[in-house]
Amino acid sequence: MSSYVHSSSPSKAAAISENPQYHDTPEKVCIVGSGNWGSTISITIGQNAAKYEECETRVNMWVFEESIDGRNLTDIINNDHENVKYLAGHKIPENVVAVPDLRKAAEGATLLVFVLPHQFLPRLLPQIKEVVHPSCRGVSLIKGLDFDKTALRPTLISQSIASAFWPGFQCGVLMGANVAKEVANGELCESTLASCFGDPLDEQTRRIFDNRTFKVQHVDDVAGAEACGALKNVVALGAGFVDGLDLGGNTKAALIRVGLREMIKFCKLFFDGVKDDTFTQSCGMADLITTCYGGRNRKCAEAFAREQSYEIDCNKRWADIEAKLLNGQKIQGTLSAKEAYAALESVGKLQDFPLLRTIYEIAFDGKHVSSIISGISVERSNL
Amino acid sequence: MSSYVHSSSPSKAAAISENPQYHDTPEKVCIVGSGNWGSTISITIGQNAAKYEECETRVNMWVFEESIDGRNLTDIINNDHENVKYLAGHKIPENVVAVPDLRKAAEGATLLVFVLPHQFLPRLLPQIKEVVHPSCRGVSLIKGLDFDKTALRPTLISQSIASAFWPGFQCGVLMGANVAKEVANGELCESTLASCFGDPLDEQTRRIFDNRTFKVQHVDDVAGAEACGALKNVVALGAGFVDGLDLGGNTKAALIRVGLREMIKFCKLFFDGVKDDTFTQSCGMADLITTCYGGRNRKCAEAFAREQSYEIDCNKRWADIEAKLLNGQKIQGTLSAKEAYAALESVGKLQDFPLLRTIYEIAFDGKHVSSIISGISVERSNL
Repeated sequence: MSSYVHSSSPSKAAAISENPQYHDTPEKVCIVGSGNWGSTISITIGQNAAKYEECETRVNMWVFEESIDGRNLTDIINNDHENVKYLAGHKIPENVVAVPDLRKAAEGATLLVFVLPHQFLPRLLPQIKEVVHPSCRGVSLIKGLDFDKTALRPTLISQSIASAFWPGFQCGVLMGANVAKEVANGELCESTLASCFGDPLDEQTRRIFDNRTFKVQHVDDVAGAEACGALKNVVALGAGFVDGLDLGGNTKAALIRVGLREMIKFCKLFFDGVKDDTFTQSCGMADLITTCYGGRNRKCAEAFAREQSYEIDCNKRWADIEAKLLNGQKIQGTLSAKEAYAALESVGKLQDFPLLRTIYEIAFDGKHVSSIISGISVERSNL
Repeated sequence: MSSYVHSSSPSKAAAISENPQYHDTPEKVCIVGSGNWGSTISITIGQNAAKYEECETRVNMWVFEESIDGRNLTDIINNDHENVKYLAGHKIPENVVAVPDLRKAAEGATLLVFVLPHQFLPRLLPQIKEVVHPSCRGVSLIKGLDFDKTALRPTLISQSIASAFWPGFQCGVLMGANVAKEVANGELCESTLASCFGDPLDEQTRRIFDNRTFKVQHVDDVAGAEACGALKNVVALGAGFVDGLDLGGNTKAALIRVGLREMIKFCKLFFDGVKDDTFTQSCGMADLITTCYGGRNRKCAEAFAREQSYEIDCNKRWADIEAKLLNGQKIQGTLSAKEAYAALESVGKLQDFPLLRTIYEIAFDGKHVSSIISGISVERSNL
């Protein structure tokens, strides 16, 4: 464990005294989740924790235990330093320790990194809450959106996480054009950390994720960044429909553009403090572009558009396509399309979002795929 | 010729009386240029002119006369209604009349549509000026940028055109994600008309370009829209370099994002009245995306990055690549890269534009292609 030394710079000292979130405990990072993206980000976090004096070297990674060829996955990670199931071929740093017991993994943590399917959260968060450090904060890498049926508005995953802890618990997000395989290969990419931890914790957190080829920029608009991460998957379904109709680059560019404008409008409708700048960060247009050209949601939506299916249950159609194309993985866009539709319906604003509405109607309401064109091209004074 | 009837709506009547640009002459459109894009846009303009009462039905298209298999190109267009050289396989409306004599083509024109390589303009504009209607205005479809060595700033093509006419002559632009072939095929796409003709001329002009599959939105930020049209070709060179290095979608998305942010900054540095909204119109991010994924500039830059050339004269290298890949067409990105570099250098701001600078240095200064990475990832507080 590296020792923590207070910086003597006046600005940092001042910031420390002014920020009630700040603590002089060494940063203890726990990664909650160990799938493809969790294992990828553990490489960067592990390398940085070993390097930065403000961090404990050891990083716990909670791993849902499973058996691979008769060996525990945690044993494989801790002995061979490779997640053979979810990120084969890439070395995980030795200071990243796979822990199958969630409470042990999170014990004393000052920074929780959430990177797992969000349906697991309700079961896990109460256990985590009991053991973390009192100054603990979180960063969510989860792409999704919940519709709160009581409040009739969308809820961000980071909000759900924060409210499962204690009043004042802060949870930021890390979102961006980050296809895991390319990040793991060390190809240059960017990401956006959105957080309101205050100075110097925002920068300290950014440094834990940033490296030479994974460039992290900080913004304080958590809602905008996180909603982009969810909504871009919905727009990507539309991109897949366009591809499935064999339309060209002009039509796809128009869809992406209208999609971004509806994303901006959606964020401003439901969340306070959303900033225009967020949408030209990596979490905004860059992630949207990557997802609309590559990505699972686009791929499955293209298959949906091309198939001659007699199956009228759309949920089953999507499940069949996932099973056929994704080797056990799932897409988020279909779920997010439902949540976004419900949120817009609840406030009577569906007519202002022709693209998001049309994507939902094609995906779940039996509307013909070719109607994606009308979702893009409907006359709108403000798009 | 359809007769022009004043609208009786109060708003239009009021607008007419208040707008000194407005005229009650029937709109007489002259298309100056007849290449691939000119022939494509002539289809929409011809159809609309035949349909709208505010327009004369006949649309003149100035065609640089050439001989194709022993026949004049103008005769082929006027008899067979097809530009066999630049847009084979698509029917041009019969009311679009190919005219080889520029003065005759432009005589009495109230709306000039400029769609030709901009190096021809200085020779043509004085002839056009002499014959057009006193209320004439222009729309430029030309993608480029001039560096004014006297004023030490970039000049827009639309400004050059306007200043070749008379004080108060207005020239707007039409820019967007408009690959000509896809437009001609009737695939849905969007475009941006940027003009300050005033009410109702902006809307009347928009209607002349717009149709069911070519959706034109109006903005009044001519400088922002036009500079985007030029600068996107420079960024597309960067995209081609990334492709030539076999980097993935994350890196390309980062390049496009940083490229858009530098485009915004460039516009605000050199031009007044630039609006953020312009950059999420078709002329902004949509055109940038299409150009960075398809397009000639990207293609030639990829070839530039892949070739093992011993040729040290970069201008010759680019000319060789164009000759090999483009079947007689040219790219604009290399010229625009030089103009943008000169403009930034003249105001001492190159260091604030690491991507545009690096693209220029790779294209013309012998810098290694792999340095495109540093152009994207250099630490910048404001990108």
